[in-house]
Amino acid sequence: MSSEKKERHNQGYRGKILKLLSEKRVSIGDHINVRTKDDEFTGILIPRYESTDENYLVIKLKSGYNIGIELHKIQDILKVIQRPIQTELVIPTTKTVSRKYDDILQPTTKNEDKYLDKDLLPKVALISTGGTIASKIDYRTGGVHAALSAGELYASVPELANYTSIDPDVLLNEYSENLNPDHWTLIANRVAEKVKSGNYRGIIVSHGTDTLHYTAAALSFALQNLPIPVILVGAQRSSDRPSSDASMNLIGAAIFAIKSEFSGVFVTMHANYSDDIIACHIGTRVRKNHTSRRDAFKSIDVKPIAIIKGDTLEMQMQQSHINLQKRNNNGSNSFIVKSSFDRKVILLKYYPGFDPELIDHAIISGYKAIIIEGTGLGHISRECFSKIQQAIESNKLVFMTSQCIWGRIGMTVYNTGRDLLNIGVIPLSNMITETAIVKAMWALANSKDTTSAMKIMQENIANETSTVISI
Amino acid sequence: MSSEKKERHNQGYRGKILKLLSEKRVSIGDHINVRTKDDEFTGILIPRYESTDENYLVIKLKSGYNIGIELHKIQDILKVIQRPIQTELVIPTTKTVSRKYDDILQPTTKNEDKYLDKDLLPKVALISTGGTIASKIDYRTGGVHAALSAGELYASVPELANYTSIDPDVLLNEYSENLNPDHWTLIANRVAEKVKSGNYRGIIVSHGTDTLHYTAAALSFALQNLPIPVILVGAQRSSDRPSSDASMNLIGAAIFAIKSEFSGVFVTMHANYSDDIIACHIGTRVRKNHTSRRDAFKSIDVKPIAIIKGDTLEMQMQQSHINLQKRNNNGSNSFIVKSSFDRKVILLKYYPGFDPELIDHAIISGYKAIIIEGTGLGHISRECFSKIQQAIESNKLVFMTSQCIWGRIGMTVYNTGRDLLNIGVIPLSNMITETAIVKAMWALANSKDTTSAMKIMQENIANETSTVISI
Repeated sequence: MSSEKKERHNQGYRGKILKLLSEKRVSIGDHINVRTKDDEFTGILIPRYESTDENYLVIKLKSGYNIGIELHKIQDILKVIQRPIQTELVIPTTKTVSRKYDDILQPTTKNEDKYLDKDLLPKVALISTGGTIASKIDYRTGGVHAALSAGELYASVPELANYTSIDPDVLLNEYSENLNPDHWTLIANRVAEKVKSGNYRGIIVSHGTDTLHYTAAALSFALQNLPIPVILVGAQRSSDRPSSDASMNLIGAAIFAIKSEFSGVFVTMHANYSDDIIACHIGTRVRKNHTSRRDAFKSIDVKPIAIIKGDTLEMQMQQSHINLQKRNNNGSNSFIVKSSFDRKVILLKYYPGFDPELIDHAIISGYKAIIIEGTGLGHISRECFSKIQQAIESNKLVFMTSQCIWGRIGMTVYNTGRDLLNIGVIPLSNMITETAIVKAMWALANSKDTTSAMKIMQENIANETSTVISI
Repeated sequence: MSSEKKERHNQGYRGKILKLLSEKRVSIGDHINVRTKDDEFTGILIPRYESTDENYLVIKLKSGYNIGIELHKIQDILKVIQRPIQTELVIPTTKTVSRKYDDILQPTTKNEDKYLDKDLLPKVALISTGGTIASKIDYRTGGVHAALSAGELYASVPELANYTSIDPDVLLNEYSENLNPDHWTLIANRVAEKVKSGNYRGIIVSHGTDTLHYTAAALSFALQNLPIPVILVGAQRSSDRPSSDASMNLIGAAIFAIKSEFSGVFVTMHANYSDDIIACHIGTRVRKNHTSRRDAFKSIDVKPIAIIKGDTLEMQMQQSHINLQKRNNNGSNSFIVKSSFDRKVILLKYYPGFDPELIDHAIISGYKAIIIEGTGLGHISRECFSKIQQAIESNKLVFMTSQCIWGRIGMTVYNTGRDLLNIGVIPLSNMITETAIVKAMWALANSKDTTSAMKIMQENIANETSTVISI
């Protein structure tokens, strides 16, 4: 359709500017030179998302920054190159300049000059599953597309070559909202293969951020007694934007993969709004708490276990709260893979006006477990009690988490809680709802009956409950 | 049943201690005197919740603090009074000592001695709906019960008499997990009555904390152009516990009711873990973010609009983010009450493995609106697209909020979002999910058709979306 086509070419531009662009035969994505009374700017014409003032033209400069130029100041526009920026990504030749393995594990000596062969660097596998970290802006549509391969990603972060020799592997190319429990199985099995190979000091999984924490929980249960660390990493801004967090997050993941003395499943992302600290979270205790900030991921009820500044790894963990296993590079004897998940788990987030009949629906639809995201310490209206009782009598497991997000379920404090306990609702301590859903799917798939699944849900397997709450 | 009875009488006690208690005919709730080699303690025998060490007996001293006494130190136990503490609550005689209205609105002069008649104090209505703020521990069961009347509550916080003359009114006596949209209507109408009477400088609604923020949102939509402030207040610890926040929160609510220059619906609760600052939140922008902490309530994407220290009210608000109306004590001409809510709203929180068939269920069950609590910027798996399309074709309103809690929906950034926009999903900016549910129920009940309800959902009525995000 021509109107759609027009929108693509000059999205967000209207009125006189649109007319000028047409006259100059310039479209979004074109490399243009704009001359004003005082200055001259060269860059790519980009779309306008929020067209509050139509008398501006916006170009992305080579530095990556955007500049808005007022119409009345424009003297001329020239199209200089036809290609959009995304085709200009250059994959640098592999750096042969790199430091020796042992140096990396020691504090860096600045005057160090003895560079050695890349083969001596610790090897890390990078499994790419898609998401923003592996994507770039399409300046024609203004949107972000999954596009970079793991290899390209590595190439776009050449600093990695200083620390590690990365083995890239493209497993999936999906934004994470499209990943489901079958993908968790796929990812877990691919990680397991690489762990068993004994070739790697750590495994990095790059992943879309939307459900990164769900996958982190899934791998935490699926991969037990890991001999090495497995680190999930994502980005909130695509790799080709100047504000991208992809590069630092990935370097943080690599530093942790190489230096951590602990094994297990972790998530490395920006720790705060500044661009110099990476936080490392436990796979079952992390949540995406902001739609767009680079420091969207937060540890819940515990501190991040480590902070990475530059190439320095500082453990933050209070050991008493958390059980971590020591890294054991040489052995994967006790490593266990249980990578099945049973989708028959339903989440019901309670709210005033919630229709108890939804619980009926869960019963007749063949769900095996119901996670109630209740209010406060683990409550739900007494209007729902009889339906919950029916669910339990129908051999459904009914678990309680809290929509408060922080804090522990406490169902002995109020009548509501005690009544629900009497009916047979199982409180899940301070397990995050998202982790509880994943664990229930895993427990059902990896136990002979609902009774043993119920027992598994109450055991602390991968720090999904913490003994002490610290903030 | 005798075992249950036994448990009630000596809950948590085992072994030798239990034997000793039986010998001395002492039960939980009894006032006892315990003599040790060095000391003597008098207090109430309370249950043991976490019986890590069975050789302790725990009594609550008159000061309110608990003390554990080791078995081997106990020389004798005497039962001194049969009555449990809850019957001992004394309602103090009304203080006639109180300060003048104008003094209260000015910074306090410490040497002030000119006390005036109570009738000169600003009048505030206190509508009690139940919850922890109006409850006390039952030392027989160890649980908390809704019990105090608004009058008793006022009596248990005698400091209030220094600031205001409170008109107590018991409307409900429910823990808030049992409140539903019909209760919102009831509360809104009662508040409206009192507002219209013109007798009050402000209205306080005491409320259970579990769904306090839902009710705050409900009142924010139901009561428009309020001439005076309406403040919801709760407590995380019951009023008769030494750690109770009831008293300070209530005083904070009263200070805000009297001193605020703005009208509207607000929530006052502890601002942090210390016991000296109260935060005042906008009714549509607040969430219970911890199961048990006294500072569980947090403003989302904005700062609390005010901080109360002692009797000083400090406005914190950045006016540009938020639209507040000035107080207008003298007129309720433009005051509008729209207190109906339509329950036919379903919340679907998305998670990997979410069965799209749940959307089918929402369609056939006659819901008029579906709130999807999606991932990240407002996403849901493409597995759900066709069902969402069906819902929209069936004249259902489908709205998108984010389970991230903080940050704004942004559905033009990725393909997933753009596809959902094309299908007809309506993004709700940075409206909190809990507020979105309430608003949808209100919009449906107060518009002639779904089209106008949809329009209402996209208007900013009570700061449910903020123009700028600040943290």
